[in-house]
Amino acid sequence: MNNHVHGGDVYHYRDCLDFSANCNPLGTPESVKAAARDSLERIYEYPQVGYQPLKEAIGKYEQVDPDWIICGNGAAEVIFSVCRAGKPKKALVTGPSFAEYEQALQGVGCEVDHFWLEEEEDFRVKRDFLKALRPELDIVFLCNPNNPTGVLMDQCLLMEILKRCRELDIFLVVDECFLDFVEEPALYTLKNVLGDYRNLFIIKAFTKRYAMPGLRLGYGLCANTRLLEKMTEENQPWNISTPAQAAGMAALLENSYVEAGRQLVFKEKAYLRERLTRLGLKVYPSMANYLFFKGPEDLFQACLQKKVLIRDCSNYPGLSKGYYRIAVKKHVQNEILVKALEEIWQKRL
Amino acid sequence: MNNHVHGGDVYHYRDCLDFSANCNPLGTPESVKAAARDSLERIYEYPQVGYQPLKEAIGKYEQVDPDWIICGNGAAEVIFSVCRAGKPKKALVTGPSFAEYEQALQGVGCEVDHFWLEEEEDFRVKRDFLKALRPELDIVFLCNPNNPTGVLMDQCLLMEILKRCRELDIFLVVDECFLDFVEEPALYTLKNVLGDYRNLFIIKAFTKRYAMPGLRLGYGLCANTRLLEKMTEENQPWNISTPAQAAGMAALLENSYVEAGRQLVFKEKAYLRERLTRLGLKVYPSMANYLFFKGPEDLFQACLQKKVLIRDCSNYPGLSKGYYRIAVKKHVQNEILVKALEEIWQKRL
Repeated sequence: MNNHVHGGDVYHYRDCLDFSANCNPLGTPESVKAAARDSLERIYEYPQVGYQPLKEAIGKYEQVDPDWIICGNGAAEVIFSVCRAGKPKKALVTGPSFAEYEQALQGVGCEVDHFWLEEEEDFRVKRDFLKALRPELDIVFLCNPNNPTGVLMDQCLLMEILKRCRELDIFLVVDECFLDFVEEPALYTLKNVLGDYRNLFIIKAFTKRYAMPGLRLGYGLCANTRLLEKMTEENQPWNISTPAQAAGMAALLENSYVEAGRQLVFKEKAYLRERLTRLGLKVYPSMANYLFFKGPEDLFQACLQKKVLIRDCSNYPGLSKGYYRIAVKKHVQNEILVKALEEIWQKRL
Repeated sequence: MNNHVHGGDVYHYRDCLDFSANCNPLGTPESVKAAARDSLERIYEYPQVGYQPLKEAIGKYEQVDPDWIICGNGAAEVIFSVCRAGKPKKALVTGPSFAEYEQALQGVGCEVDHFWLEEEEDFRVKRDFLKALRPELDIVFLCNPNNPTGVLMDQCLLMEILKRCRELDIFLVVDECFLDFVEEPALYTLKNVLGDYRNLFIIKAFTKRYAMPGLRLGYGLCANTRLLEKMTEENQPWNISTPAQAAGMAALLENSYVEAGRQLVFKEKAYLRERLTRLGLKVYPSMANYLFFKGPEDLFQACLQKKVLIRDCSNYPGLSKGYYRIAVKKHVQNEILVKALEEIWQKRL
């Protein structure tokens, strides 16, 4: 496995039940598909440059000034774009965490330091992270809750980190893509302090909340409008497709769908955690819509033979073989995974 | 008007008949819309990273090795991506030409020199361009046929430029996005010499050929696979959406639709040229699916009052007020434009 292998590769592993990508288990809302479908009658025209109606809809949804919003062809484009515009020379990322931060930083020639999270601490970011914030850093990436562990940061510590970054003139990117699936997102999001911290950039996605990764739509929130202008200038003007703009507008109205997905995740996560623990697996305290656990080194292949695709996390910097991530899906699907695992265990006893 | 105003802004100029963007006048093929529509049932999954099936289909269509193909979220992303990967320090672009080359180059901090095309020469690239190719250049952009003029390059001169660039270690990007609409594209494309010129990069788009700008799909052809790998690494892995991949595969089968669009363009361009010339307008020798002409300085506004949107080209570097570009559309639409112009003229007599 190399660094550019991701979850969700259903094209390579056909006919498998996919637990390797983490989206709303309810699937794409019908209204989102319908909006994208209707928009196909207008694809003979260019998409709207600047996507102002979408920006305003996101602004209303997030209760954030539309001028503080920038969209991307998926959250991944926003990550790459913020690195290109900021042109950082020295960065700090945690390990393990989402590999795209490092790839995007290396793409602009940035030196990347790792802050290794410790297994004994359940890969939690602790107070010693503050000591790693040094004036020579230009940018820090944090993922909250973290991917692949699902571990949520202590909110007081996060605020201390944000303040310390402002003092040291460090730009802090906080990826909140999976925050919609924690029990009380409002307690953990930093969006309410954007106005006080121009060094803060929050990443969010439609992908997970509305299960629409194929359409590509993510966004960033930041009060530094000069930076957003720079990102816009260094990007092509038509980066958000017409179907993505239409689908995004429809998705933002789907509040009860999101809540239903959240409730399902809470319930099913407890079920999966209980069953995995019963098998003797070490399951880490994920607060997101996926579970992270330690298991036998050949578990990925063993699951594949059962037509179940899990995320082998051994290519995450900071992890070795034997770490896995699974999405929380619908009960009937989760039962298939549990059954597959139980059969694998039974055979080995 | 600033440099980032483009044609096709039907969102700002609502209820206008749009002649400011140049796509196949037949509109998006039904099969393309159907393929995109069907793909919406799979947007709960990530798009295929590396889009191998699409690459192979393009390879077959273009008769080019699939390994020499890279796709983008529209041709515009390919332009930006080639600049990011190549990191040129000094570039040469012609003026007037498509403004995105310069924007993409400036985004990577590249110094941009202009080779000004002369009006007296119908903005044609002539042999003196060879003299502008100096060893200190890293990259040269040419658009063939040129946007906004539609002027096609002399094929012998183009080959001389390509050879000279190879000798001087200059990377040559040739934008062939509108070449599908010239009478004999096979005589003018450089794709057959890709294997001999690793310094050559050809840009192509689905946008114009199949009238699908809203879906965002373009591609680049280059024998330098190391460069393509670099472009891939410096981009997010899911840049081609699921609907774009599906629509692209369907589009490549639409040969008779493309030919019908071409024949319509040939016929209607002659009609438009004749009518514009009859009004006393200077019409330049466009070989593409649009016409470029000189007219009164207030023509853009006068047309708007007639609910007709034309492309005011005054923000193209190298042009002043009074230059316009119009797409060649269906006859009934072209008649509306001609009628609008005739009424504007009549009022002024």
